[in-house]
Amino acid sequence: MLYESIGEKPHEWAGKTAGEVQSIGQQDGSVLVVPVGSIEQHGNHLPVATDTILVEAIIDAALGRLDDEPVLVTPTVWSGFSPHHLGFGGTLTLEFDHMRSALEDIAHTGLQNGFDAIIFVNGHGGNIAMISTVTSTVGVDADAEVLGLTYFQLATEEIQNLRDSDTGGMAHGGEFETSLMLAVRPDLVAEDGWDATMWDEHYEWGGSDLIEGGPLSVYRPFEAYSESGAIGAPAEASAEKGDRIRDIIGTELAAIFVAIHEANRN
Amino acid sequence: MLYESIGEKPHEWAGKTAGEVQSIGQQDGSVLVVPVGSIEQHGNHLPVATDTILVEAIIDAALGRLDDEPVLVTPTVWSGFSPHHLGFGGTLTLEFDHMRSALEDIAHTGLQNGFDAIIFVNGHGGNIAMISTVTSTVGVDADAEVLGLTYFQLATEEIQNLRDSDTGGMAHGGEFETSLMLAVRPDLVAEDGWDATMWDEHYEWGGSDLIEGGPLSVYRPFEAYSESGAIGAPAEASAEKGDRIRDIIGTELAAIFVAIHEANRN
Amino acid sequence: MLYESIGEKPHEWAGKTAGEVQSIGQQDGSVLVVPVGSIEQHGNHLPVATDTILVEAIIDAALGRLDDEPVLVTPTVWSGFSPHHLGFGGTLTLEFDHMRSALEDIAHTGLQNGFDAIIFVNGHGGNIAMISTVTSTVGVDADAEVLGLTYFQLATEEIQNLRDSDTGGMAHGGEFETSLMLAVRPDLVAEDGWDATMWDEHYEWGGSDLIEGGPLSVYRPFEAYSESGAIGAPAEASAEKGDRIRDIIGTELAAIFVAIHEANRN
Amino acid sequence: MLYESIGEKPHEWAGKTAGEVQSIGQQDGSVLVVPVGSIEQHGNHLPVATDTILVEAIIDAALGRLDDEPVLVTPTVWSGFSPHHLGFGGTLTLEFDHMRSALEDIAHTGLQNGFDAIIFVNGHGGNIAMISTVTSTVGVDADAEVLGLTYFQLATEEIQNLRDSDTGGMAHGGEFETSLMLAVRPDLVAEDGWDATMWDEHYEWGGSDLIEGGPLSVYRPFEAYSESGAIGAPAEASAEKGDRIRDIIGTELAAIFVAIHEANRN
Amino acid sequence: MLYESIGEKPHEWAGKTAGEVQSIGQQDGSVLVVPVGSIEQHGNHLPVATDTILVEAIIDAALGRLDDEPVLVTPTVWSGFSPHHLGFGGTLTLEFDHMRSALEDIAHTGLQNGFDAIIFVNGHGGNIAMISTVTSTVGVDADAEVLGLTYFQLATEEIQNLRDSDTGGMAHGGEFETSLMLAVRPDLVAEDGWDATMWDEHYEWGGSDLIEGGPLSVYRPFEAYSESGAIGAPAEASAEKGDRIRDIIGTELAAIFVAIHEANRN
Amino acid sequence: MLYESIGEKPHEWAGKTAGEVQSIGQQDGSVLVVPVGSIEQHGNHLPVATDTILVEAIIDAALGRLDDEPVLVTPTVWSGFSPHHLGFGGTLTLEFDHMRSALEDIAHTGLQNGFDAIIFVNGHGGNIAMISTVTSTVGVDADAEVLGLTYFQLATEEIQNLRDSDTGGMAHGGEFETSLMLAVRPDLVAEDGWDATMWDEHYEWGGSDLIEGGPLSVYRPFEAYSESGAIGAPAEASAEKGDRIRDIIGTELAAIFVAIHEANRN
Repeated sequence: MLYESIGEKPHEWAGKTAGEVQSIGQQDGSVLVVPVGSIEQHGNHLPVATDTILVEAIIDAALGRLDDEPVLVTPTVWSGFSPHHLGFGGTLTLEFDHMRSALEDIAHTGLQNGFDAIIFVNGHGGNIAMISTVTSTVGVDADAEVLGLTYFQLATEEIQNLRDSDTGGMAHGGEFETSLMLAVRPDLVAEDGWDATMWDEHYEWGGSDLIEGGPLSVYRPFEAYSESGAIGAPAEASAEKGDRIRDIIGTELAAIFVAIHEANRN
Repeated sequence: MLYESIGEKPHEWAGKTAGEVQSIGQQDGSVLVVPVGSIEQHGNHLPVATDTILVEAIIDAALGRLDDEPVLVTPTVWSGFSPHHLGFGGTLTLEFDHMRSALEDIAHTGLQNGFDAIIFVNGHGGNIAMISTVTSTVGVDADAEVLGLTYFQLATEEIQNLRDSDTGGMAHGGEFETSLMLAVRPDLVAEDGWDATMWDEHYEWGGSDLIEGGPLSVYRPFEAYSESGAIGAPAEASAEKGDRIRDIIGTELAAIFVAIHEANRN
Repeated sequence: MLYESIGEKPHEWAGKTAGEVQSIGQQDGSVLVVPVGSIEQHGNHLPVATDTILVEAIIDAALGRLDDEPVLVTPTVWSGFSPHHLGFGGTLTLEFDHMRSALEDIAHTGLQNGFDAIIFVNGHGGNIAMISTVTSTVGVDADAEVLGLTYFQLATEEIQNLRDSDTGGMAHGGEFETSLMLAVRPDLVAEDGWDATMWDEHYEWGGSDLIEGGPLSVYRPFEAYSESGAIGAPAEASAEKGDRIRDIIGTELAAIFVAIHEANRN
Repeated sequence: MLYESIGEKPHEWAGKTAGEVQSIGQQDGSVLVVPVGSIEQHGNHLPVATDTILVEAIIDAALGRLDDEPVLVTPTVWSGFSPHHLGFGGTLTLEFDHMRSALEDIAHTGLQNGFDAIIFVNGHGGNIAMISTVTSTVGVDADAEVLGLTYFQLATEEIQNLRDSDTGGMAHGGEFETSLMLAVRPDLVAEDGWDATMWDEHYEWGGSDLIEGGPLSVYRPFEAYSESGAIGAPAEASAEKGDRIRDIIGTELAAIFVAIHEANRN
Repeated sequence: MLYESIGEKPHEWAGKTAGEVQSIGQQDGSVLVVPVGSIEQHGNHLPVATDTILVEAIIDAALGRLDDEPVLVTPTVWSGFSPHHLGFGGTLTLEFDHMRSALEDIAHTGLQNGFDAIIFVNGHGGNIAMISTVTSTVGVDADAEVLGLTYFQLATEEIQNLRDSDTGGMAHGGEFETSLMLAVRPDLVAEDGWDATMWDEHYEWGGSDLIEGGPLSVYRPFEAYSESGAIGAPAEASAEKGDRIRDIIGTELAAIFVAIHEANRN
Repeated sequence: MLYESIGEKPHEWAGKTAGEVQSIGQQDGSVLVVPVGSIEQHGNHLPVATDTILVEAIIDAALGRLDDEPVLVTPTVWSGFSPHHLGFGGTLTLEFDHMRSALEDIAHTGLQNGFDAIIFVNGHGGNIAMISTVTSTVGVDADAEVLGLTYFQLATEEIQNLRDSDTGGMAHGGEFETSLMLAVRPDLVAEDGWDATMWDEHYEWGGSDLIEGGPLSVYRPFEAYSESGAIGAPAEASAEKGDRIRDIIGTELAAIFVAIHEANRN
């Protein structure tokens, strides 16, 4: 459970006293990181917390590469926007407005501690529009720079070089996420039940892959596309590939944190 | 960080696949537990996640006393309703409606997995009205029994017998919470900075203690009452007392879980 | 109807001109009282306005014991939060948010007249979390002290001494409320139809009595527990007991009003 | 205070048991009446509850003219939409949405008792758009006929014949309202302080009179137009005129209640 | 489509650069006009955009009569509040709150350009309460004069003289609107399908005509009153009559624009 | 003004009767198109309606390439989400939730006419997250396929081949939009005032160009980046290039409309 590990790392807001949080927030070029995940079905082989676990693991990899930049990370918002997954069970999701409001409140009360910038770091495809939205709605009012990104949209060229599956293979519960889970929390990956459907997107402008997108958004309830709830090619996954992905994206994300810190120094 | 321990215990929703969650939800007399904490200032000696850590530790103590009752626990809602703590920093809080909506959504989507009962288990004084509210608003619509409680209102007679401080000593960051933190996560308790104010409630009908209450509610911004943000008698705290409190309340809470399970069997 | 008696008593906001209201609000230590009741089924022997009538009668008893403290009382909010009573008919209820917003608006516009404190005085069990909530949400923004209470949680030891029924007998439409109605508005108490169910709460931590509570909240639609809608022991009620209850709680409430006045003087 | 007279008249919802309410609601052609007033400044000579008192008095006059039609009246919604009066004090007002939601909830839960029609009867100029709005928003969902009116827009030709003031004299706190108050609750009319401004509307299409309107709406904060808060010609008021107005409009309103009853019989 | 004509007239906000808009807004006595229409069924002979087209045509007629007063007109809000028309198809409508919020936002951001007054000009009966509402809700906060009107409530005496139909003939899709459409956009009037029902309002206090109203509002789903969706006497319509109506009301509206300009000059 | 051209084209909802709309909606594979633009500053040389005009012109180009597919287009939602442009004037914008609600209502009431699919076609960068959001929130409830796109994200490879400016030149009011305006509505392009700033995005992961994006979102109030409000290289614009862009994207969009029609046939 969370209480056993929360606050163990040096960049965690949760383990500090109020005074320690404020003294970091007031440093020059301070950056607040808000991780956003989801609890939703991930096929028969991955736990429902997959997105929450992976976004944190990537952020941890990035934080470990920092020097002494004043960067704090809030606890992870573990509930995402996942109405399209409800059909499979295991999903805990908020309505769009409710999740948006929660993220805005976390940002506004977090920024009261003096941070110069805030960045939402997201790990779930269904949250991408959410993150872009709160980047705007928080940005309008905030006296700080407001940013947002989704970790699997970073370093996509390098990830493409790593992949063994075709387009569509790095989708929900596929080669990409299964590899990362094997690297990060192999104890939570089931030994069998690695069933997944390669999704044949009938619109050439649509996207069926986390890494390769397209300009056309289409609403898709998952039960119409997959029997197991997983989509892609988990069979191509490996812990080694997961380690490599974590390194690549963690390094990229660390560079972004440093760049934000530098850009917001007086 | 959370990703390192989430899903390690057998009753955790987060570490299971969607199918595993559903199969527990569909058992006779199944119970869903939603822990609710806060991230808020707790004086100079306790971390801001104190309420979140303690509510989880108590629930974990209760779950460890169960046999094979079908009980699952969602990840903890770590943001509470804490506007009265914002003056001290370190606080991440939601507006009342936003937190209420989030709890309702978690309950409604959680219950879609077939649970017969749901109980919100709260660890923060500022959330008490919230928990009572969502017990009603979820209860109106749910096809399941809906319950709520705040852990430090359990077994109050036994806790009174344990205490060394006078009324007011078991308040925010005082003898009670500091003892529990010394038992649960001593690594997060500061060695010094144990400053706290004994709060002399001027209304005899008001409450200045977690364990002893009163019929009169009064809104109190904390900065008006304490220089450190802590109220009570942390000097009376000890890890042994904390272990004892965890045992007593954990046992009581386990009995409640079992009673709910029994009451909702067909 | 209301228009025949509204404004007859000296502490009523409603019967004064705008200027008179303001001149009281601007006095030192001025207190604004907002009574909150309900319109909901109360069995076959009590009118649906029982909670509204009783909370006003108690407040009137308290106001009659004041000297010349600057205390004004708004008209009573007669609609409560009563979704659990809808099954019986006769109930007019607001959704939680709608009632909360109405109470906040009344408080905020009332406080514009210069009052130093505001207290919500509630007469309905279903409103308890509501009152606690608005005490917080109004308190965050108000430049005045904000308080709340439920009248039947006052002087509970003395009331316990008066009672003839066992635990559960002073529940909805039972010994307590029927006695008070016999004292206050006997013309509205039916001569027969005094049917009520003694409710055997199956959780030992739950509360089935207005005067004796418990730490566990459970949502209960009333039709599942009582055929008449009343719960408790109305047969133990008497007008004499009602007079005594009004005296005891009225005296206690007057002391609270005076204490608030004193605490908020410059 | 309200508790002394509420429920004394035979058509009042508040004084009945739940079962009595339902048995009237289930009669053929049953009509539910929701009175809506306000608490707002009315110059130096009228109490802030003037609109609430008058709308009830008119409804009472109408109900007294009925035979045995199944008509029930809820307690009066005493808070109106009065932001334009806040500058003078004495005003308790809800935001537009909050008041709209409250009216909708009262209507929806009231209609659950089987009524065939519901009519909002309003007594405050600032509520006119509100009443028209809820007539639509309740009407869309209700399985009953939904209607609304403002009492001083009835029988306007006859009222015009009675008046002694020019256009603008029957405005806020003027000849019309003061006459009615002298007839209904003379004890609440101040002996002096009858100051009022005749408002010279600079737009010929606007309306400065309750009885004579115009097609152009203009938002007017009252403090810009009157020193006392009253507008019109209270000096022309008399109790006799007030009695006559109550008769005329009460008769018209009774005819409307009967017509609704007849139109909604099977 | 809109892009072909938007911005062609000199008073249109849409065709100007940001700087041009601001320079007009900053002139003395500047007026911002917000046209509000609807998209809803208008029988078998008129297009669903009838209200939107006509309110613009009337405003254009008024603008053409101005000299060089600083008046700008925003694009027309083409979606109205029309739930009572959904049964016939062709209707695009917003919920009340959503449309109210949209109008408020347009007003608030429009007024940021320095305008001294704003007037909503409405063309749809279902929007009348909406316009009155936003006149209040915008007026409370705005640092400008806020007004509202519905064009067919102007010059009603003159229009009455023009009409050939009895009361009820100038209702939805009847003599009045069909005449105007024949004058303004005859290409969009169907050659046949001029079916309409003369609506026999059973309440004498209700209104069944755009020009002649009544004090009683009644919610009416249109499918209960007309087979075609049109109500009134379209057979009495003519293009000549439409030209005359446009002249009369256009002249009246121009006079109102000039009066607002004059009233708001320093 | 809009009334002069609305409804002239065969695919326009606005010019049809209710019955005609329904008969198209009920055809097999019917598609409803909702254009979404904005009214916001576009530098000193382009009108504030630029995004609204261009998204319509592109849709018109696509509709002209269709055969007899059952496709209808609603009037354009001309107000976008543009808080970051308010500093320059000329901007009419809705709050995020208000615009989202309006789009959802238009979609839900539009789909009541039987359409098999709905697509939001957007023309404003600030609306991209909005469109993605409503694609989800409408999709959850709709009994139709729900899609969304932003026109300038189509055919980006071909557009890249056409451009003469470097990255950043096809930003707000730059080479791309100015070219299209010169092709579509040259009468609304100012002869001078073509000032624009080439924006040197300091984050390499951010995007400063409509056509070339990046994974990092950053909130940017425009006044911090440009003196004129325009960003990019309008000097590289030409009407010929605009014609070519309209052809390329219009053709692509027509192919998407046809694909949606085909995919949704029974």
